[in-house]
Amino acid sequence: MSNHSDTAGARDRDARRATTAATSAEGAPGFAGVSRRRLLGTAGAAGAAGLVVGGGAAVGGTVAAREEAATALTTVGSSYIPFEGARQAGIVEPAQARGHLVAFDLAPGADRRAAAALLRRWSDAARAMTGQGRPAVPASYDDQVADDAGPCSLTVTFGFGRSFFGRTGLTARMPEALAPLPDFPGDALDARRSDGDLWVRIGADDALVAFQALRVIQKAAHDTASVRWQMNGFNRTPGATARPATGRNLMGQIDGTNNPKPTDPDFDEKIFVPASGSPSWMAGGSYAVVRRIRMLLDSWDHLSVERQEKVIGRRKSDGAPLSGGTETTRVDLEKIRPDGSLAVAGDAHIRVAAPASNSGATMLRRAFSYHDGIGSDGAPDAGLLFVAWQADPLRGFVPVQRKLDGADGLSRFLRHEASGLFAVPGGVGPGEYVGQRLLEG
Amino acid sequence: MSNHSDTAGARDRDARRATTAATSAEGAPGFAGVSRRRLLGTAGAAGAAGLVVGGGAAVGGTVAAREEAATALTTVGSSYIPFEGARQAGIVEPAQARGHLVAFDLAPGADRRAAAALLRRWSDAARAMTGQGRPAVPASYDDQVADDAGPCSLTVTFGFGRSFFGRTGLTARMPEALAPLPDFPGDALDARRSDGDLWVRIGADDALVAFQALRVIQKAAHDTASVRWQMNGFNRTPGATARPATGRNLMGQIDGTNNPKPTDPDFDEKIFVPASGSPSWMAGGSYAVVRRIRMLLDSWDHLSVERQEKVIGRRKSDGAPLSGGTETTRVDLEKIRPDGSLAVAGDAHIRVAAPASNSGATMLRRAFSYHDGIGSDGAPDAGLLFVAWQADPLRGFVPVQRKLDGADGLSRFLRHEASGLFAVPGGVGPGEYVGQRLLEG
Repeated sequence: MSNHSDTAGARDRDARRATTAATSAEGAPGFAGVSRRRLLGTAGAAGAAGLVVGGGAAVGGTVAAREEAATALTTVGSSYIPFEGARQAGIVEPAQARGHLVAFDLAPGADRRAAAALLRRWSDAARAMTGQGRPAVPASYDDQVADDAGPCSLTVTFGFGRSFFGRTGLTARMPEALAPLPDFPGDALDARRSDGDLWVRIGADDALVAFQALRVIQKAAHDTASVRWQMNGFNRTPGATARPATGRNLMGQIDGTNNPKPTDPDFDEKIFVPASGSPSWMAGGSYAVVRRIRMLLDSWDHLSVERQEKVIGRRKSDGAPLSGGTETTRVDLEKIRPDGSLAVAGDAHIRVAAPASNSGATMLRRAFSYHDGIGSDGAPDAGLLFVAWQADPLRGFVPVQRKLDGADGLSRFLRHEASGLFAVPGGVGPGEYVGQRLLEG
Repeated sequence: MSNHSDTAGARDRDARRATTAATSAEGAPGFAGVSRRRLLGTAGAAGAAGLVVGGGAAVGGTVAAREEAATALTTVGSSYIPFEGARQAGIVEPAQARGHLVAFDLAPGADRRAAAALLRRWSDAARAMTGQGRPAVPASYDDQVADDAGPCSLTVTFGFGRSFFGRTGLTARMPEALAPLPDFPGDALDARRSDGDLWVRIGADDALVAFQALRVIQKAAHDTASVRWQMNGFNRTPGATARPATGRNLMGQIDGTNNPKPTDPDFDEKIFVPASGSPSWMAGGSYAVVRRIRMLLDSWDHLSVERQEKVIGRRKSDGAPLSGGTETTRVDLEKIRPDGSLAVAGDAHIRVAAPASNSGATMLRRAFSYHDGIGSDGAPDAGLLFVAWQADPLRGFVPVQRKLDGADGLSRFLRHEASGLFAVPGGVGPGEYVGQRLLEG
């Protein structure tokens, strides 16, 4: 296999993010070579010209026009995130409009060799589906549900759970960082929807593209692994809002303002395992903490907006901290109101979660919302598929959650129902598969 | 109340479909007056200019640029479907990217007066959420999850189930067309997820906008009605594909080619109750047959594409009938192959479902796909939230399903798990509420 670090520079995905079909036509690797994409001649710059769907026929028969005319591919469809690169795709990018989280357990008897073959099949399928690979997805996996669609920012990201290493005889290579997460007193975890030997995160801006990818990954598991749990989530559709891209969660709160930015000087150090890190096969990788966090929305929505804002420490309308300013103004945790009270209450979520309250602990949160209808208790079975990325969970999620659990006024409205921790290796170059340095090194 | 037919011409929604914020700025009723929409100054024609998200910063820091820069509202967000009109919105328009179907039962003791008040609250909330109303959604209902978003083609559509009439003393006004659907031998219906006093269809091109609408409708039910069942679905995101808008279902098949078109000469007659129809309160309305149709995807995907195409009678790649031509070529059911066999098999879905095979029966299908993860049998709990609209179910869904059930080769791969039939009245003008002619007439 090629040495990853040799080609990392050339493959650095960060320089190619948010590439559209229009720019790919100018030379970057595009999706035109993938046989399932039948967009040749219509993709690319056509998106902009055809943006106002049906707008030219506003009087009479507009429904039919929208129905029957060829619609234009917009950036929703044409945006493209390369599978190959120094890091896996699906970590730093804004979470897509539709997502699937799925964990697999290895079948009894599946050994290291079988696992390596599985990761090879999965990587090849992901490479093909995201538009960079040849040949296309094997016909035996492809249900054609994504036919006609653009890449839609599809990403497929692979990780290893703690139990993977014992089953494949690789215990000696298990990262220390995969030590089980501590028990948090507020947890109400369902073991059947937690953990797993392998974890896959799928995201795309179109639900059918994401569904097809999920089915392909399931079929490519053959008899080597079977689904342990699977969850579906969503976010804003690109273009649905003109605001900055900080989204709202299902509590209606702007969520993610204080996420570290890829442009922060210490971003890489906080989020990714360095080249000199241990174990060496995790260089360029990251650790994903996955929590299914149910929101007790009936209780939450019963509070006045003023009460909700006190619980969070931010204005609901625009996300500005209660100490003043706008969404991106740094919160002043010491600010005192004229009446002598703290502007941001002692148990406000942003106070307890602030890096300053947690020795600078930082994680990159890339969540999906979920909504699985009505729960057995009659309330919405809805909340957050929380995914936190960090170079070391003991300096990221764990200290923050230790503080939040109990001390955070918001925790009364949340219930952590499932949990997982996964080692997500670095990205791959041409011909490589994710985890190759673990499985063959 | 104003007489519906007096203003139907002025309110004819068909002439205003697919209105965008850009066109609404030119005079059509827009959403700018709704206080929860904070898009003033950024909506409208800005969408086209900002289409290529992050495209101008393709080298270095593109992720951050996409994250932090104000994103542009595209037609995904700005497209707007008026709530008011001769017909209810959410019937003839292409189904949106995200949808909720929800049925309510009236609380014990809720009478005709309480039901009228409920439909008034629901209509006012729908009018406000879809952008046409003042004032905005009452704060007590609004979780602000849809704040910052454009209208996103949101529609909210209301219907009445057979059981509604007995509970409100309105049996004399119950349409004959609400007679229970016949038992189909192939059905495997779950009564808890079938029927209901009231039915609401919500659709939007953004999942958070659809979710907020669902929550508002639930809260506005107060103690008058409670949720009986609720289902979530999806379709292609507009702009994800450059094909004509005929979508694919989760079997990968292009689905909906033979749907009647609003431009067909007999479209209104087949789909909507005429002004002279009976009962008079249903003039301009339609009947919705709702079926949760699970697809047995593991069995289906096991077939070769050739076998799948024989089952359907169309090519999978492009939807062309096996008798030749392209997707929109009329199928030739008599065509014989050189080997003497029928080009379209005797039990092919398009043969059995063809209007010619069913005395011209026609319905307008506006389905969502659904995917609720893994079923208790380990297979995908996925398929179609099938919604069929017609002026008379006995001349639409019923004869077609009678033919399909058993005779259709596709039926071996489908399981009808839930069913409902609802009377969906005509649309409303300013100040009116849906069902007013039933409840006050």
